Amino acid sequence: DKKQIVKKSEDFSGWYTDVILKAQLADYAPVKGCMVIRPYGYALWENIQDFLDGLIKLRGVQNAYFPLFIPESYLKKEKEHVEGFSPHLAVVTIAGGEELKEKLVVRPTSETIMYEMYKKWTQSYRDLPILINQWNNVVRWEKRTYLFLRTSEFLWQEGHCAHANHEESLKTVRWALDAYISTYQDLMAIYGISGVKSNTEKFAGAVKTYSYEMLMPDGKVLQGCTSHDLGQNFSKAFDWSLQDKDGLRLFPWQNSWGFSTRSIGGLIMTHGDDQGLVLPPEIAPIQIVFIPIPGSSDNILKFIKVISDKFISVGFRVECDNKPNESVGFKYNKWELKGVPIRIEIGDKEESSKSVTVFRRDTRERMSIPMDKVVAEIDKLLKAIQADMFQRHKKFTEDNTHKTDDYETFKEIMKTKKGFIKSFWCEDSGCEVKIKQETKATTRVLPLEAKEEKGNCIYCSKPAIHRWYFAQAY
Amino acid sequence: DKKQIVKKSEDFSGWYTDVILKAQLADYAPVKGCMVIRPYGYALWENIQDFLDGLIKLRGVQNAYFPLFIPESYLKKEKEHVEGFSPHLAVVTIAGGEELKEKLVVRPTSETIMYEMYKKWTQSYRDLPILINQWNNVVRWEKRTYLFLRTSEFLWQEGHCAHANHEESLKTVRWALDAYISTYQDLMAIYGISGVKSNTEKFAGAVKTYSYEMLMPDGKVLQGCTSHDLGQNFSKAFDWSLQDKDGLRLFPWQNSWGFSTRSIGGLIMTHGDDQGLVLPPEIAPIQIVFIPIPGSSDNILKFIKVISDKFISVGFRVECDNKPNESVGFKYNKWELKGVPIRIEIGDKEESSKSVTVFRRDTRERMSIPMDKVVAEIDKLLKAIQADMFQRHKKFTEDNTHKTDDYETFKEIMKTKKGFIKSFWCEDSGCEVKIKQETKATTRVLPLEAKEEKGNCIYCSKPAIHRWYFAQAY
Repeated sequence: DKKQIVKKSEDFSGWYTDVILKAQLADYAPVKGCMVIRPYGYALWENIQDFLDGLIKLRGVQNAYFPLFIPESYLKKEKEHVEGFSPHLAVVTIAGGEELKEKLVVRPTSETIMYEMYKKWTQSYRDLPILINQWNNVVRWEKRTYLFLRTSEFLWQEGHCAHANHEESLKTVRWALDAYISTYQDLMAIYGISGVKSNTEKFAGAVKTYSYEMLMPDGKVLQGCTSHDLGQNFSKAFDWSLQDKDGLRLFPWQNSWGFSTRSIGGLIMTHGDDQGLVLPPEIAPIQIVFIPIPGSSDNILKFIKVISDKFISVGFRVECDNKPNESVGFKYNKWELKGVPIRIEIGDKEESSKSVTVFRRDTRERMSIPMDKVVAEIDKLLKAIQADMFQRHKKFTEDNTHKTDDYETFKEIMKTKKGFIKSFWCEDSGCEVKIKQETKATTRVLPLEAKEEKGNCIYCSKPAIHRWYFAQAY
Repeated sequence: DKKQIVKKSEDFSGWYTDVILKAQLADYAPVKGCMVIRPYGYALWENIQDFLDGLIKLRGVQNAYFPLFIPESYLKKEKEHVEGFSPHLAVVTIAGGEELKEKLVVRPTSETIMYEMYKKWTQSYRDLPILINQWNNVVRWEKRTYLFLRTSEFLWQEGHCAHANHEESLKTVRWALDAYISTYQDLMAIYGISGVKSNTEKFAGAVKTYSYEMLMPDGKVLQGCTSHDLGQNFSKAFDWSLQDKDGLRLFPWQNSWGFSTRSIGGLIMTHGDDQGLVLPPEIAPIQIVFIPIPGSSDNILKFIKVISDKFISVGFRVECDNKPNESVGFKYNKWELKGVPIRIEIGDKEESSKSVTVFRRDTRERMSIPMDKVVAEIDKLLKAIQADMFQRHKKFTEDNTHKTDDYETFKEIMKTKKGFIKSFWCEDSGCEVKIKQETKATTRVLPLEAKEEKGNCIYCSKPAIHRWYFAQAY
């Protein structure tokens, strides 16, 4: 059976690749490091876009489009920024049959080209705030492809706002983080820890970076998104100043924030099982699949159509699989592999008993629902699946979050079960580097709500005031 | 006044650039040939995407995403294809700090990379049809930028379907053309002539190319989109064959079709006037703008809110401009420049007479509408504006479509008023080339509904059976 996949419990990364290829979410592209997002995978991205773009527009942020190519000299204007991205650049040197005088970098992110335009478009504080987002493709060269999680080209949105003061800019930074948390929790049913990154882990050019970190079933942690407080680093590097109310020079306060197709990798890993993908109903391209039982009366398809039309009229996303030449078992496996939240089986038995047989993908339970209640009951069930999937991931994360003040225990956890470890850290990057070398764990975040405590750094024993979340990162 | 623009009648191309820059639709990017699409311009593209993507999905075509980079060797597989695109390629030679072994081309279009994947994904005729579309950016290097109309990078959708026979493939080709015609006519209020291109003008690698050609106010013609019957050219070049019903080799029949941001250039040129942009209501990001008259009572904004909420509840896109420090005259000019279809002025006079003063952008008429009928009347007015704008462009096109069997007259028309010329052509490319050299006119299309006639080629006088549409192209 070509649909068979490796078991999740036996070979996690083999399972991951199997699910993606066999559920036809994506495939390897001929170019090293690149991937093709197939229709079923792209439909997930479209649902993320719909959800997140709605939140972005509600905030008054408008979409725009900036060029793919950035002159090499632009990228060099912010020192940390160019150092961070240089090793990962794809560079165009020939265009229109000629060697270019100035090389063009394929955007790894768009700060530099966007801010040069912002500078051109503004004269005074009255032109602030600038609230712009773009949905596009970016390139950061990778030698090895890890489908969705690490690819040379990926899709994302990058929001770039500029404000007259730091306080307003910080509000945007935190709003963006909240929008991402909502996307993960409400759409994708993924729990995580949000907070601020350490200086080592922050974005090249940022003052502070905030993120949402999600624990995966293998005990490693995926950074789900980032929202950066850029302070005035870029406005100063670009010599972008405006006249303020008092006629003085004002360097705008900026922020940038991004959410990418990487998130789909997290979705697959978090919820999938040995049978394949398990999709939360809110993001599932198909929420309900009807399987007519072969050998049923000719009325069955009409009967399905009646129910299906009811579902469509209330906005459910449905499909009916009446392909010939495929057995019922084959179809069951196919749609389980594709993670469709609810399967409805209908044959003569169901028609005569005026009920439908319902299979719930996440728990693999079967139940019977009377026809006259089917819309309300399925609606309830979809909501229950969504809530349960989130709660299961939250419980998994909590069960695998450890707290220790002893470095030997820390090392032991990282060697065996992994997961999050909450430990005191003195906030010196030297300790951070050593811990990474010795255990593979890096600081993930300091949670937003963290209060000061008294403790000692897990590594150097010097005084520390915060427990940070450590984990091995993807 | 920085908002002042050159007159359309006096300097058409100066006017075009002025409108784009001053209405903040787009701007020149630092990289030669590239542009930035600003939020107001991008909102037009989003409305095009919504409209066209809806039609595409109704057809059962699914969106996907293929890589930006194409190995140079792929592009070379189809001979005409590589010859057509070679002079316009941007080439990545360095990535991740190393010289690449095989150069990567930034996609000018995605036939080659997509079909290599299609080949990988299919075994038998049962895997057909493949119905895939993608929304992305492509690069075809240009030395001189003409905002929206000719830029090195542009945004578009490219649909690529594969079928088991030519007939089905041709149905898709014609369906795509119809979807584009509907987008131009129903959304953008632009009339045009649809038909098949000559061999000289067809897509590099196609058997036949269909397009929609639109007459612009300067007498030149813009090709609005293309839909290509690729026959088996690509499946044979890629050696992509499947097992058919009888176990024989079947080379799939393919088609591709694209609609780009170039269309926005056509929208601007077609409808704009000396005051700036004029947008058809269906595509306008803002359909109605409210201007409160300064010095009115404090109730005015509340009064506007009541009407505005009514409009929003029926789905109109509205905005209220209550910016301080700007005169009413300045605001009128600003929103006329931005082409908002309807302006509603409200002051004490309107409040006390329970009516609103309405300004219609396309005809610049002012009228009064009683408050109790305002939603129904504005709805009617929006529909009337949309219909009238299309009819005006249709009439303009018809008035500027000439018919001649005399080459001297042909030359005279092309030297003076331009427009479409319907003339007999023997379908020999030699004549086509000569006509272009001598008059700048090229064959645009042979209309779909064209019947055979008896005539003589306008250039060589040999027998010809069809009148083709000639014009100077953008």
